[in-house]
Amino acid sequence: MQNLYNHSDFSIHNIPFGIVVINGQTYVSTRLGDEVFTLEDLQGKGLFDHLTLPNGIFRSNFLNDFISLGKKITSEVRLSIQRYFKQNNPDSVSHYPAGEVTMSLPVRIGDYTDFYSSREHATNVGIMFRDPANALLPNWLHLPVGYHGRSSSIVVSGTDIKRPKGQTLPVDADKPVFGPSKQIDFELEMAFIVGKENALGETIPVDKAEDYIFGLTLFNDWSARDIQKWEYVPLGPFLAKNFASTMSPWVVTLEALEPFRVESPKQEPEVLPYLQCNGKYNYDIQLDVIISTAENKDTLVSHSNFKYMYWSMIQQLAHHTVNGCNMRIGDVLASGTISGPTPDSYGSMLEIAWKGTKPVTMSDGTTRSFIADGDTVTLKGYAEKGDIRVGFGECTATLLPSE
Amino acid sequence: MQNLYNHSDFSIHNIPFGIVVINGQTYVSTRLGDEVFTLEDLQGKGLFDHLTLPNGIFRSNFLNDFISLGKKITSEVRLSIQRYFKQNNPDSVSHYPAGEVTMSLPVRIGDYTDFYSSREHATNVGIMFRDPANALLPNWLHLPVGYHGRSSSIVVSGTDIKRPKGQTLPVDADKPVFGPSKQIDFELEMAFIVGKENALGETIPVDKAEDYIFGLTLFNDWSARDIQKWEYVPLGPFLAKNFASTMSPWVVTLEALEPFRVESPKQEPEVLPYLQCNGKYNYDIQLDVIISTAENKDTLVSHSNFKYMYWSMIQQLAHHTVNGCNMRIGDVLASGTISGPTPDSYGSMLEIAWKGTKPVTMSDGTTRSFIADGDTVTLKGYAEKGDIRVGFGECTATLLPSE
Repeated sequence: MQNLYNHSDFSIHNIPFGIVVINGQTYVSTRLGDEVFTLEDLQGKGLFDHLTLPNGIFRSNFLNDFISLGKKITSEVRLSIQRYFKQNNPDSVSHYPAGEVTMSLPVRIGDYTDFYSSREHATNVGIMFRDPANALLPNWLHLPVGYHGRSSSIVVSGTDIKRPKGQTLPVDADKPVFGPSKQIDFELEMAFIVGKENALGETIPVDKAEDYIFGLTLFNDWSARDIQKWEYVPLGPFLAKNFASTMSPWVVTLEALEPFRVESPKQEPEVLPYLQCNGKYNYDIQLDVIISTAENKDTLVSHSNFKYMYWSMIQQLAHHTVNGCNMRIGDVLASGTISGPTPDSYGSMLEIAWKGTKPVTMSDGTTRSFIADGDTVTLKGYAEKGDIRVGFGECTATLLPSE
Repeated sequence: MQNLYNHSDFSIHNIPFGIVVINGQTYVSTRLGDEVFTLEDLQGKGLFDHLTLPNGIFRSNFLNDFISLGKKITSEVRLSIQRYFKQNNPDSVSHYPAGEVTMSLPVRIGDYTDFYSSREHATNVGIMFRDPANALLPNWLHLPVGYHGRSSSIVVSGTDIKRPKGQTLPVDADKPVFGPSKQIDFELEMAFIVGKENALGETIPVDKAEDYIFGLTLFNDWSARDIQKWEYVPLGPFLAKNFASTMSPWVVTLEALEPFRVESPKQEPEVLPYLQCNGKYNYDIQLDVIISTAENKDTLVSHSNFKYMYWSMIQQLAHHTVNGCNMRIGDVLASGTISGPTPDSYGSMLEIAWKGTKPVTMSDGTTRSFIADGDTVTLKGYAEKGDIRVGFGECTATLLPSE
């Protein structure tokens, strides 16, 4: 085979998993280049004959049952697909153009947790809303701060988002008002999907945590900053976040990201033993955020990287379970906004336009401090090393006006 | 029939729903007095012949599918059972002693939200940790403050809870330490279960909200106060809460609680229009908290009432969805700690022992500022009016030592 789609996010090195809808039926599927393949069709070619798989495992609304088979099986399924396409023409099996099929949410999400693990993001927020001299709160360097989010409102890329209404406190007012949020923001995040369960009361040690991570997606944690500002004390964000989050449809496995491991940032002060890990537990994944205005003009508003995370995924998972909290397959743990060190790598409009003080000029000449009705926000993510490229495709959604 | 179990929580006026496990099989069930009945057995007696019900609806791990039939059906099922037991001896159908069967968690919980809706509780916490002169934060009287909790760790009454480990910051220390929490607390709460869905982007108006509430349970939102204090800024409680919450097994329907409606507390300042409701939207449900020490001596540490809630359930639901957040059947919305006006009605050890400054003396002579290893915490809830009694039974759990 010549064409291994090396320049595509979905090269032969990727082989992600997702759920495709064909004629109303959902199938576990993968993607190579611009073509989508159902695993049932691939099974029909005998690719998985050496594995014992439950009947109908590839006809499912979600990846959960497939993931439940365990990494030994799911890895072998992925490798079998990779071997097949290295030796056989993709046209030898049914396929569907990626641009023409509908993808649905890849996992049935039990619980969704959002972390706050980018030091640059937490510092920017601290400077803007608290004290520039003490931007990070005292706990931030000692534990990966996180909170529980809403799983019901996580939707797949391509789903329109409606501008939410809510309570906000106007500047200098002593009473809140009700109406559509005026400060809708994106948050550039990545999310990982739990692939193995721990029982309630058991912990996942940091050095075993990778076994519990199935794969990753892009994640836009839509936020209404004005609602957030009024509601969030003392129990954290609530309606400012739970109106919608957007997830990309293809779950890229941890195995596919193996070549892109990089050192994690040095942690100073030293963290407590249950969080200690030395080695390459971050991933060099380039991240773009594009805003397309209603006129269909694109503007790149951020170029960041997943490698900037101060707290790694394995630390997040070890921390989350150190009290015995149980993880279930399909649970989603998101990174929090991923900001880099320079303004062009900030992961939210709040930071890019610095609380509205530095509006961003779009390609069509208009300016933005937050997201406008009709804007489409697209996150992209991809890792490259030599000839190897593994990407996530797009996580995109259009903001519709409030009714 | 003479014996209508009028003095039992599970009188003829109640007819709650739960999931019983018999020989490894789960059944939708109800309870009268001290006897448990499967709805399949009652169906066998022809009670529901006038209804069109899906096959096997009463053999289920959870009530969700049953609740999905809609209130018109589930109410009629309840009334049919009530009519039957008014006319027939309970011995005419198979039954199982409540003390000998295992109950499992009644619903498959998608999302769990915890409110903070008792003014007395929020005031107490504000006095203890912030400023006595400004105990309530500025948003508190304008909206029902709430946050997302963890659904995976909600367990049914009777499940032991293990003391969690975590990070805490000792007094006067500049670095956190790791170890078992020293301040495990209960929170006396009630929880309601969503019985009808709204689509993402749609709201549930306050005057329609009762249609979306299936029923209520007792709820103990276990908390680790020392972990909470260190971790909770700025995004709210996380590991301090998600190690376990205990739910009572019987879901008491809103219909059964109809006789116990009472006026809600007057809200001043006036709330925004989407939260306005005048009438009897609170419920007079007496609540007890009993701590049994390892020596099996019981101490009543609190006697509170659900009627104290400042924010009603319909306001919580209207607020939660005013931004378009979607509810799913089985979602759990808990009240937050229910404290009354006097110290003997406070709903947590934090308040009862006032941050450890007023330890409580137990029946066995020992004292408690928080919960000790081996203690069993039991919540009880019951409504009474004339000859009518409707109750929740018990929500109980024993705290095991950390390993």
